[in-house]
Amino acid sequence: MNNPMNRHDRKPLWLIAVVVFSLAFPLQAGSPVGDSRDLKLVEKWEKVANGVFRTVVGNHDGEMHYSDLAAASPKIETLNRLPDVPISKALKSASFRLLADGKVLVRIPTEPGEKIYGYGLQFDNTMKSGQIVELKVDHFKKGGGATHAPVPFYISSKGYGVLFNTAKYIKIHNQVGSRKDSKHNPEEVDRNPPADEKQAGPWLALPPGDAVEAFIHGKGLEMVGFTGTSFQDIVARYNLFSGGGAMPPLWGLGFWHRTPAKYSAEQTAAEIAEFDQHRIPLDVIGLEPGWQSKSYPCTYEWQKKRFPDPGKFAKQLLDDGIRLNLWVNPYISKHSRIYEKMKPLSGSHLVWLGIVPDYTLPEARQLLVDQHKEDHFDIGISGYKIDECDGYDFWLWPDYATFPSGTSAEVMRQTYGMQLQSLMHKELFVKNNQRTYSQVRASNGAASSYPFVIYSDSYGHNQYVTGLSSASLSGILWCPEIRSARNEREWINRMHTVCFSPLAQLNAWASKTKPWSYKNATDAVRNTIELRMQLLPYLYTAFANYNQQGIPPVRSMLLETGEGKDQSKEQERKLDGETDPYADGFHQKITEDNSLYMFGPDILVAPFLNNSTKRQVQLPAGNWYDFYTGKLLGNGNKITITAKQFNDLPPLLVKEGALIPMLTKSVMRTKDIQGAAIEIRHYGKKDGTCQLYEDDGQSYDFEKGAYTLRTFALESGQLKQKIVKKGAKPLYGDVSLRQMTK
Amino acid sequence: MNNPMNRHDRKPLWLIAVVVFSLAFPLQAGSPVGDSRDLKLVEKWEKVANGVFRTVVGNHDGEMHYSDLAAASPKIETLNRLPDVPISKALKSASFRLLADGKVLVRIPTEPGEKIYGYGLQFDNTMKSGQIVELKVDHFKKGGGATHAPVPFYISSKGYGVLFNTAKYIKIHNQVGSRKDSKHNPEEVDRNPPADEKQAGPWLALPPGDAVEAFIHGKGLEMVGFTGTSFQDIVARYNLFSGGGAMPPLWGLGFWHRTPAKYSAEQTAAEIAEFDQHRIPLDVIGLEPGWQSKSYPCTYEWQKKRFPDPGKFAKQLLDDGIRLNLWVNPYISKHSRIYEKMKPLSGSHLVWLGIVPDYTLPEARQLLVDQHKEDHFDIGISGYKIDECDGYDFWLWPDYATFPSGTSAEVMRQTYGMQLQSLMHKELFVKNNQRTYSQVRASNGAASSYPFVIYSDSYGHNQYVTGLSSASLSGILWCPEIRSARNEREWINRMHTVCFSPLAQLNAWASKTKPWSYKNATDAVRNTIELRMQLLPYLYTAFANYNQQGIPPVRSMLLETGEGKDQSKEQERKLDGETDPYADGFHQKITEDNSLYMFGPDILVAPFLNNSTKRQVQLPAGNWYDFYTGKLLGNGNKITITAKQFNDLPPLLVKEGALIPMLTKSVMRTKDIQGAAIEIRHYGKKDGTCQLYEDDGQSYDFEKGAYTLRTFALESGQLKQKIVKKGAKPLYGDVSLRQMTK
Repeated sequence: MNNPMNRHDRKPLWLIAVVVFSLAFPLQAGSPVGDSRDLKLVEKWEKVANGVFRTVVGNHDGEMHYSDLAAASPKIETLNRLPDVPISKALKSASFRLLADGKVLVRIPTEPGEKIYGYGLQFDNTMKSGQIVELKVDHFKKGGGATHAPVPFYISSKGYGVLFNTAKYIKIHNQVGSRKDSKHNPEEVDRNPPADEKQAGPWLALPPGDAVEAFIHGKGLEMVGFTGTSFQDIVARYNLFSGGGAMPPLWGLGFWHRTPAKYSAEQTAAEIAEFDQHRIPLDVIGLEPGWQSKSYPCTYEWQKKRFPDPGKFAKQLLDDGIRLNLWVNPYISKHSRIYEKMKPLSGSHLVWLGIVPDYTLPEARQLLVDQHKEDHFDIGISGYKIDECDGYDFWLWPDYATFPSGTSAEVMRQTYGMQLQSLMHKELFVKNNQRTYSQVRASNGAASSYPFVIYSDSYGHNQYVTGLSSASLSGILWCPEIRSARNEREWINRMHTVCFSPLAQLNAWASKTKPWSYKNATDAVRNTIELRMQLLPYLYTAFANYNQQGIPPVRSMLLETGEGKDQSKEQERKLDGETDPYADGFHQKITEDNSLYMFGPDILVAPFLNNSTKRQVQLPAGNWYDFYTGKLLGNGNKITITAKQFNDLPPLLVKEGALIPMLTKSVMRTKDIQGAAIEIRHYGKKDGTCQLYEDDGQSYDFEKGAYTLRTFALESGQLKQKIVKKGAKPLYGDVSLRQMTK
Repeated sequence: MNNPMNRHDRKPLWLIAVVVFSLAFPLQAGSPVGDSRDLKLVEKWEKVANGVFRTVVGNHDGEMHYSDLAAASPKIETLNRLPDVPISKALKSASFRLLADGKVLVRIPTEPGEKIYGYGLQFDNTMKSGQIVELKVDHFKKGGGATHAPVPFYISSKGYGVLFNTAKYIKIHNQVGSRKDSKHNPEEVDRNPPADEKQAGPWLALPPGDAVEAFIHGKGLEMVGFTGTSFQDIVARYNLFSGGGAMPPLWGLGFWHRTPAKYSAEQTAAEIAEFDQHRIPLDVIGLEPGWQSKSYPCTYEWQKKRFPDPGKFAKQLLDDGIRLNLWVNPYISKHSRIYEKMKPLSGSHLVWLGIVPDYTLPEARQLLVDQHKEDHFDIGISGYKIDECDGYDFWLWPDYATFPSGTSAEVMRQTYGMQLQSLMHKELFVKNNQRTYSQVRASNGAASSYPFVIYSDSYGHNQYVTGLSSASLSGILWCPEIRSARNEREWINRMHTVCFSPLAQLNAWASKTKPWSYKNATDAVRNTIELRMQLLPYLYTAFANYNQQGIPPVRSMLLETGEGKDQSKEQERKLDGETDPYADGFHQKITEDNSLYMFGPDILVAPFLNNSTKRQVQLPAGNWYDFYTGKLLGNGNKITITAKQFNDLPPLLVKEGALIPMLTKSVMRTKDIQGAAIEIRHYGKKDGTCQLYEDDGQSYDFEKGAYTLRTFALESGQLKQKIVKKGAKPLYGDVSLRQMTK
């Protein structure tokens, strides 16, 4: 309880009652389940850490678990500093059946009104009650479960989460379906009654189900259950179980730009110069496929006609503070020098006629890593954009492809993005003590500790924004990159969204749109990017919190803990004493609105979608202030905001009492942050606190304690600094207070 | 060879060369396959009958085969009267693999340019090359394989067909995917070459595959291969293997109308009177859910408030020549008298809170049949509309539901429609020597001998028409019923389509549209229905041909055998002698145009879609004539036709030399056909032949020979009649010739 970054400390809650209930829970292990006679109760939930429980039904030996692929081991110590919330009633009531046709079914009962959220990067919504999801890596479908990151993890409004810890395809009925022997079925209703007959209620096309039921083809299934005091707490525990959140290098949080597929070194340098001319901050240049001698499939070798001296080119850019990121796809060309050795280590099928390496094999990993180190890392390449590891069915290998390790085609598909993240992160970057911040098209369960951000082909603006919310529920990072816009206004609006996301990238080379393409929008675009640069101290600290505490830096309103609201109701509950912690212990008022999201702990982003300049915002409880003026905007009410009111800057609302540490002035490169002055903006009337994290910005020395953490508290108008840990050289210069609310 | 209904007799073709090749075929059983080292050659194809071959890979014992569910045994004798076409090269080269993760894969190689067609009722297209289909009963999806009748049967442009004879879900890559060790892969191409580098060809997002590869979850798989001399011949053999085509009662081919869900006996009688007033022919009235005491789920018992004396009501209608068809769905209400006994014979999950009987159990079948016989059949009910046996995932039982027989949920889903057809057809109607013509929402493989027509929720007019083509490739019947129209013209056009389909039904009660609703269209509608009635002798004979020879009565242009075209080219081929019957023996010029279809052997329907009144028609080879005027319209060229040209009657084109037997005058009920005069219309200049089939129109006595078959041949302007078989009383009166082409 002595880590000041632990936001959970603020809410111990109803722990005593919980213990009582836990002991009194009446179900016996292995017995048939009351409301589903065909099923057996899950025998045993092993406690992994506080609020984390694991079980296996059937025989899941030898199967791949997402947690095996995590970048780091579970942060058990951190978990055990969190409240010891007992297993939930639902998990204790979970049951299963091994079916004769080779399926494993698990059932986790739900209560009336219970809501289910999650399942990874979803573009349609975050709430999945009444839906069936088929979780499969596939970039094509929007909804139904198939997506870039179909994470088999859900959270329930009753205060628990479940990870189906298998890398197989899984299909999940979320409160869809009625068992014949259930005691919770609604009354049967005639759909066509005679006029004089009364019915028990309206006829429903989809009678509400009373469970989450999931199945895979296999002999067994591992599940990991999570409990917590809020959605944020449950998700944080899931992330901590997954090794914690990713920690990007500081430069990764600057502005990114990708150049056209066939650009040369000269053209790239000229484009960087244009950024400077237009005074647009820039930290990363992404090279698209044509940097390679062959692409689709790939060689990973430099196309010397375009990049005659890649080492010199990379160094010139690095000297200027610009990092290079390289586009790759996983399929290897005959013309690559690693092709011959990789061929026997690859699967039965080709993708775009390139071989598909089996990266569950250490030899295959080593081949790729050695080549990448020599050709890329050693000249200063900062990371990759791993494309095409999601695919349609007809682009990837089929579900019956075979791989030399014996790994099945479907497990390979579900995990390929993670395997690529794993080998690049662990064997190229961590091993050489350099952080990367990279991009990937596919990810999955227990992936939160990989510093890879998912991106994709163009989606609608509202889908991009929904993705920011849904990603945060499943330990993944999402980049709503800009490809194009239909008009100037949309260009500004999309720039707002991407600059207030985990990775601020312009990827508009195909549409040839540049930050200054819309002349009248150039200032708004520049101001937006500069604002992101100014907020880097705030954002970098939020990432440190993600890394150490598992709290997503950009997140769904579902993960709001309600710090801003009046806590008296919760106090009353606590003082009353709880008799059923399962039914009533989860004190969260859920704000389910995917058109809003939180950027760090205190800033609410209410984006104008598409080309709109006006919108309504249903404010959560508590006072909310205009980021720019410090004026009170409302409290729990519905307000209308306009682009004009924010001078075309991002529509940001700040919590009561918030302290927001930011640079007093923007910088053109993150390297210029060194020694820059910080102002801590204070909003509202109440006192507040904030943290400020510093380290070297690029190595993994912070894991050995080489970081500095300060807390700032406002007490009676005075800013009090406390140094929690001093392990690194100072990153920033002077710190001053700025009172925003007059 | 002595059955005159056998159209195949006209084309013996290249048989001698085939035998030579068959003996010389070099592959050895069980050996690894040349172009796919991971696979084993399929060991043995057992010859079932001429052109029908069966094999099993792995162990498929105890699994359900669609052929086990067929209404009748394979017509081996009929098959053996067809040319003895040997197994195809593709089938002999088929290979397989049992995968470690419990899948069975089969691979059937294809050649460059080979095209794949089929997979049941598909609304997007008939050609499936370059597509992946997941065959699953589901009424929601359009394309991708999920459909009301996802029949795992395809035909290849290289002259063979394959039935994957399993009732499991199956996923099939149709020339999608490239194996690493294939010798047929295209050359790798760089997608982003420097300007001065030449490429082998254009970069392709989807390199052409060289096989059909299919898999299921299981330990083995049965396949049935078909060869033939044309697409029509292959499909006919598939239908004969499935027991032959369905033989509807004559009344089933009359006009059908469905009344609103909550109509009473009185209201129904009044609606029939309205048909008579408007002089609209009518044979069948369909009662919708409200005829039952409870529906969704169902009791199957009469709602006495609406139908106080069902027996009397049914008899009154029958006396007038009107049959009743009853809507049902398979899910049984607590209020049904068979509920208690059925409950233990039902599955683990409910649908709309009704139990789901396991009709693989004889006791369950008997319970339903006994109730249906007593309450329905014995009072003269003619058949059923079996709704909701297709469903979305979230309407039906889940894939992990269990059933008391041990039948898996997925097999139950794939076959439920067939099981319901089976028990009603065999145990209610055949057993009592009454034919039914009924409707069903789901069917599947080897179902051609069931007299059930698939229908569905509203589709676009072009999808309805495409369904007519695709259904005919897989032994199923499809009804493009009319629900509504956006305007008068669309109403007429849709009426044309449904009257030239296997079942002419108006199902527009929800939209309250009646044949006379569009006042200015009433004559066109009446004339169209009357034309169908006049063509009953022609259509009924086509169904007899379906029943006995397997040739679909309404069919895709792919099934055109090209009788109309100049045969000299084919003669030349034959005289030349063939050296590779596989490569060149399949003499069909494929007309792939799903906007056209054949109605019986000689009438081409070129429907005006939606509200159009004009369209282009690419005519197949041979002369084609205007049905109404006998004028020549074209030969192999593209023509434009207009609704005006056909006086708003259906756009029908007739083959050169065709003889079309039809009533001289329409009738209001099919019962009035008895003794009606026949005119045989002759089109074009060449002599031709036709057949005319007669039986009692309602019993199964025809199976014991109680039918009469005449052929008519035009020789030098004179109609010559030949009685091929005389086994039944005459149905029609005098026969006369009408020369249509002057």
